[in-house]
Amino acid sequence: MKDALAHTHARIQPYVHNTPVLTSHLLDELAGATLYFKCENFQRMGAFKMRGAVNAIMQLSVEEQQSGVVTHSSGNFAQALALAARSLGVAAYIVMPSNAPRVKKEAVLAYGGQVVECAPTLTAREQAAQQIVEERGATFIHPSNDLNVILGQGTAATELLAVQPALDYIFTPVGGGGLVAGTILAAQYFGRNCRVVAGEPATMNDAYRSWQSGTIEGNDAGDTIADGLKTQLGDINFPIIQQGIDAIILVSEDEIVAAMRLIWERMKIVVEASSAVALAALLKEKTRYAGKRIGIILSGGNVDLSKLPF
Amino acid sequence: MKDALAHTHARIQPYVHNTPVLTSHLLDELAGATLYFKCENFQRMGAFKMRGAVNAIMQLSVEEQQSGVVTHSSGNFAQALALAARSLGVAAYIVMPSNAPRVKKEAVLAYGGQVVECAPTLTAREQAAQQIVEERGATFIHPSNDLNVILGQGTAATELLAVQPALDYIFTPVGGGGLVAGTILAAQYFGRNCRVVAGEPATMNDAYRSWQSGTIEGNDAGDTIADGLKTQLGDINFPIIQQGIDAIILVSEDEIVAAMRLIWERMKIVVEASSAVALAALLKEKTRYAGKRIGIILSGGNVDLSKLPF
Repeated sequence: MKDALAHTHARIQPYVHNTPVLTSHLLDELAGATLYFKCENFQRMGAFKMRGAVNAIMQLSVEEQQSGVVTHSSGNFAQALALAARSLGVAAYIVMPSNAPRVKKEAVLAYGGQVVECAPTLTAREQAAQQIVEERGATFIHPSNDLNVILGQGTAATELLAVQPALDYIFTPVGGGGLVAGTILAAQYFGRNCRVVAGEPATMNDAYRSWQSGTIEGNDAGDTIADGLKTQLGDINFPIIQQGIDAIILVSEDEIVAAMRLIWERMKIVVEASSAVALAALLKEKTRYAGKRIGIILSGGNVDLSKLPF
Repeated sequence: MKDALAHTHARIQPYVHNTPVLTSHLLDELAGATLYFKCENFQRMGAFKMRGAVNAIMQLSVEEQQSGVVTHSSGNFAQALALAARSLGVAAYIVMPSNAPRVKKEAVLAYGGQVVECAPTLTAREQAAQQIVEERGATFIHPSNDLNVILGQGTAATELLAVQPALDYIFTPVGGGGLVAGTILAAQYFGRNCRVVAGEPATMNDAYRSWQSGTIEGNDAGDTIADGLKTQLGDINFPIIQQGIDAIILVSEDEIVAAMRLIWERMKIVVEASSAVALAALLKEKTRYAGKRIGIILSGGNVDLSKLPF
C-alpha cells in the first residue's frame, strides 16, 4: 500500500497543485497546540476532490478513457471530475438534479463537463448515470467509495507529512469518507505514529454512529451548513476508517461557523464550511490535544459569497 | 536611496513577514497579462502598514523610543503602530475618535496600544496627539507622510522584485500615498524599467487631481467602500509620486466590489476593498497592459465579515 500511495502521488502530480501549508501564531495560541494547515482551498477547482478525480481517471485503460467517465454529484466532485477529465483529454458526463443551483451547473460546464439533468432523487440520479454507462460505455466514478479516489485524496496528507513528518495528529472533516480514509492510509505509511481524527457535523452524524456501531449508518433527515458532508460512508472506505480512525468528534453548527470565521479573519483565507469542521473539532476537544503537533486539512474553498453565515 | 531601501529591508526583516507572491491562471486569462500578487493581507496585523510602522520606530534614537510613539488613526496604521511598538518594547499612544468602531479600539488594545479618545474631528485628533507629544515626549509618527514610513512600505515591492525582477509594472492602491511612494522608489532602484500605476476610487479622487494639477488636492465630501483610501497625499510623498507615477486610474465602487469578489472567489483569499482597487484599475485598462508582467500589491485583509458588499 505504501508503494500504491507513493505511485499515486507521482502519477497525479502534473495535474494537481502541491498546496501550501500555512501556520498561524494566533490559532496556535487559541488551540494550545502547533497547527499546520494544508490548504486544499488553493487546490485546482478549489478542493481536494481534484486529487481523487485525476487518479481515478488515470487508472483507467486507454480504451476506458476513450469512452469517458460519469458521476452523479452536485458538489465539488462534479467540478473536479469535469476538470480532471478535460486535463486528461477525456469526456466527463455529470448527472445533476434539475433543481441543482445554476452556479453549480455553470461551473461544471466551464470546466468542460457535460451536464445531464435528472429528477432530484437518488434513484433518478443512479438511473441516469447507469444509462450513460450502458449507452456510451462510460466508466462510473464514485466521489468517495472508490479505492483510486481514496488513494488520490490521501496525497494531501502525503504532501503534508513530507514537509511536517513529525505530526502527532491529522484532522479532517468526514462526509463520504474518501478524504479521511486516504488520510488514514497516508498517516499509517508516511507518518511517525501519526493518528487521524475526523470532525463531523452533529446534525448529520452518520459517520460517528457507523464508527460506534461497526456498520454503515445512514443520515437522518438533518441538515448542516457544511454541505459537502451530507454524504455517507461506503463499503470500500468504511473498513479503512473503522480500523484506522482515532476519534470522530461531533460539532454544532455554531461551532462550525465560529471556526470558519476564525480561519477567514485570522488566516485571511476563504474556506468552505466543511473545511472548518476539522478546526471546530480540534477546538472543541483542545485540552485532549494540548501541546501536540497537528495537521489540519482545509478541504476546500468553494463558497457562495452571497450566502455567508456571518 | 538604493542603500536606504536595502538597509530598511534588512532592518525590519525580523519584525515583518516576507509575504507570499501568489498567481492565478484564471485572473491572468481575465486580465490578458501575467499577474503576481504580493499578499500583504498575510502581513502581521493584516496589512502592509506594519512595515512602515516598524521602520519608523526603529529609526528613532533609544531616548526617543523610551518616550514612546503617538499617531492618530482609526485604521490599519493604528493597529500597525501598536503591534510594531510592542514588538520593539516601545509604548504606543493611539488617538482615536470617540465614534470609532469598538472593534477597531479593541484591536489596538489587543496589540498592546494605549487608546486615547478624542472628539471626532481632525482638529481634535491633532490636538490630542500634540498634547501627548508635549506631555510625554512621545514622537508623532504620521501614517503615510514620513520618509521612514515610505521606505518601510517600499519593502513590499522590494521583496516582490527580488522574486520577480522583470516586472513591467507594479499596481498599488493610493490613499495617503505612503505605499505608492515607497513602491515607486523600490521600482526605480530594484526594477528593470518597472513602472508604477496606482488605482484610486473615483468618488475620492484627490490623488488623481493632485497628479493632474501638480499641487496636493483635498477630498471632496465623497465616500468609498475602500475605507483605507479616504486619506490624502502629503508634502513628503507627493513629490515622489509626482515625479515617478506612470498613471493613476480611477475606478467605480462597482468595479472595486467586482474585483474584490474575483480575488475572494478565484484566489480564495480575504482582502479588504482597498486592496481590490489595484486589480480593478488594471482590469479597467486591460487593453493598455495586455501581455505585460504585472505585480499587484494586495495591501491588506482586515475586513468586517458582518458587513461584506456581496
